[in-house]
Amino acid sequence: MGGDFAPAHEVAGAIEALRLGKNGFEVILVGREAEISEQLKRHNSEGLPISIVHADEVITMDDPPTAALKQKKNSSLAVGMQLHKEGKADAFCSVGNTGAVLSASTLILGRINGVSRPTIAAFFPSEKGVCILVDAGTNVDCRAQHLYEFAVMGAMYSKKVFKHENPTVGLLNVGEEKKKGTEAVQEAYALLERSSLNFIGNVEGRDILKGTSEVIVCDGFVGNVILKFGESVPRFLKSKLKQYAAGNLFRTLLIGAARGSLRAALRDMDYEEFGGVPVLGVNGVSMIGHGSSSPKALRNMVLKAVEVAGSGLNKYIEEAMATSLKPAESAAGSAQKGIS
Amino acid sequence: MGGDFAPAHEVAGAIEALRLGKNGFEVILVGREAEISEQLKRHNSEGLPISIVHADEVITMDDPPTAALKQKKNSSLAVGMQLHKEGKADAFCSVGNTGAVLSASTLILGRINGVSRPTIAAFFPSEKGVCILVDAGTNVDCRAQHLYEFAVMGAMYSKKVFKHENPTVGLLNVGEEKKKGTEAVQEAYALLERSSLNFIGNVEGRDILKGTSEVIVCDGFVGNVILKFGESVPRFLKSKLKQYAAGNLFRTLLIGAARGSLRAALRDMDYEEFGGVPVLGVNGVSMIGHGSSSPKALRNMVLKAVEVAGSGLNKYIEEAMATSLKPAESAAGSAQKGIS
Repeated sequence: MGGDFAPAHEVAGAIEALRLGKNGFEVILVGREAEISEQLKRHNSEGLPISIVHADEVITMDDPPTAALKQKKNSSLAVGMQLHKEGKADAFCSVGNTGAVLSASTLILGRINGVSRPTIAAFFPSEKGVCILVDAGTNVDCRAQHLYEFAVMGAMYSKKVFKHENPTVGLLNVGEEKKKGTEAVQEAYALLERSSLNFIGNVEGRDILKGTSEVIVCDGFVGNVILKFGESVPRFLKSKLKQYAAGNLFRTLLIGAARGSLRAALRDMDYEEFGGVPVLGVNGVSMIGHGSSSPKALRNMVLKAVEVAGSGLNKYIEEAMATSLKPAESAAGSAQKGIS
Repeated sequence: MGGDFAPAHEVAGAIEALRLGKNGFEVILVGREAEISEQLKRHNSEGLPISIVHADEVITMDDPPTAALKQKKNSSLAVGMQLHKEGKADAFCSVGNTGAVLSASTLILGRINGVSRPTIAAFFPSEKGVCILVDAGTNVDCRAQHLYEFAVMGAMYSKKVFKHENPTVGLLNVGEEKKKGTEAVQEAYALLERSSLNFIGNVEGRDILKGTSEVIVCDGFVGNVILKFGESVPRFLKSKLKQYAAGNLFRTLLIGAARGSLRAALRDMDYEEFGGVPVLGVNGVSMIGHGSSSPKALRNMVLKAVEVAGSGLNKYIEEAMATSLKPAESAAGSAQKGIS
């Protein structure tokens, strides 16, 4: 109920997902029953496995995340996450207040053993396919240990959900050399070097779209800025093309004719294709999307959640957290310094 | 002499600049005389105001910046910067080792009064024109005071070089709210609020290309990542379009026909158009470009340097540093905390 167009887009997206989905899953719509039923009537949902669980409160975009969760015990977010916690649902999706979804995921589902800070990952298109960037905005201040944990979680997601055999992991930095960047990043380099992950060293801003590594690790400040910058590129290009064609019929026709190609090229930069991004490091499957998500974005988010729920991801994250770091060779291993 | 194609591209760029430039300037080429003369012979430079100052050493891309400057007293970088220091040149341009150019600018020219850390700015195209981003990679760890100084320098550049009357300044952050981001960024917000700059608050990654503010302030880690990411967008799009058209004659023809429009739209994302970026906060005009800069990029860099030299920029920066911050209302002003 927390999205900008709730529950209209949520209902439409769920129905689209059920029509497309081949895996035999069900959708539980959590929120104000009357409003949801009203929306359901606008679609042909006959025969689709949809049910409603009533929750009369709504956490808004402006609510302070943790306080809102405590006060609004009967919010669609709290009730839905609780259903997941109790095993009545295998995954949770929301396009509501991101901070509140993250808090609910952490507080209700709990952290995976070995994870100090749950994180949100994001996906980037690249010349070679798709890459996963962690953290996409959750933790703006990170120590080395946090960056290391993001790497482990990102690598497991890449492996288990994207089916990359031995995903390459790059540390986002301002240069290739080991001694570049902030202290936290330099220490994270040392940790990653000691890990059993397929760490390829530092990567730079230009390596994201190039696809130099399948996993890109950074703090949430950088991740958030780069994610939002990337999302703004298609709009910028459209605006520039429009300026270029303005008042010139030939150019307008040409651009019109080539629009399909452009749209296809830009589609990979369109977040709607990915639908939502996962909260990683919690005991469950929790997906978050933009407040303004379209039904299409919501559809893709639901389908992705089904896929993640079926992958057994969290079991692998827990295992990797316990085993991926080899003991430091020196007595004063830099790993110790970074633990929160 | 430090660029990847030195001195060929430097000579070609200088000649192009002199042919295009209308301001009556001269170019001094600093480096190995024989090599430079050899390149000059390949062009028709008759009548152009070009001279050569010999310098037989070269600081390479792999040299450690500060050490190299001390050891190679007769490098083209040291000799050229010295000419500028002595007033024999009004500006300095290089596409060599960025760290070394920054060190030479700081050590030889000295800092402007009131500036704690010189910085490198970069330019971004936006829907509304061009915006200046500071820091673009110089200072990866920044305190509030540094961010504040970047804002002052960026605003003066925008005002005096881009002729924006009262340039808007945005603080790059992960959200609009004052309390978002790291401690340093939150403190910088407080400083900027108290300043006489046209501070519009936090801006996000998506605001860069949108042109929400004419100056964007961030630390050098974020700035470097976003700059390199932005530069990689045209290549990514070309690659995606090629993939889309592959094996389809109609699509290939269509994209071929629309190529001009695309190129024009992408041109604004092409760093060659800007040529180089300025070192800000030093007593002089020092411009830096990519090691692999084309003659065209070098040409634009030289023309930009002429423009900056004529703008009186540094006088305004010094003045703004002394006057733009209003006294804190509370006794324990947050400004004090951040000073390095």
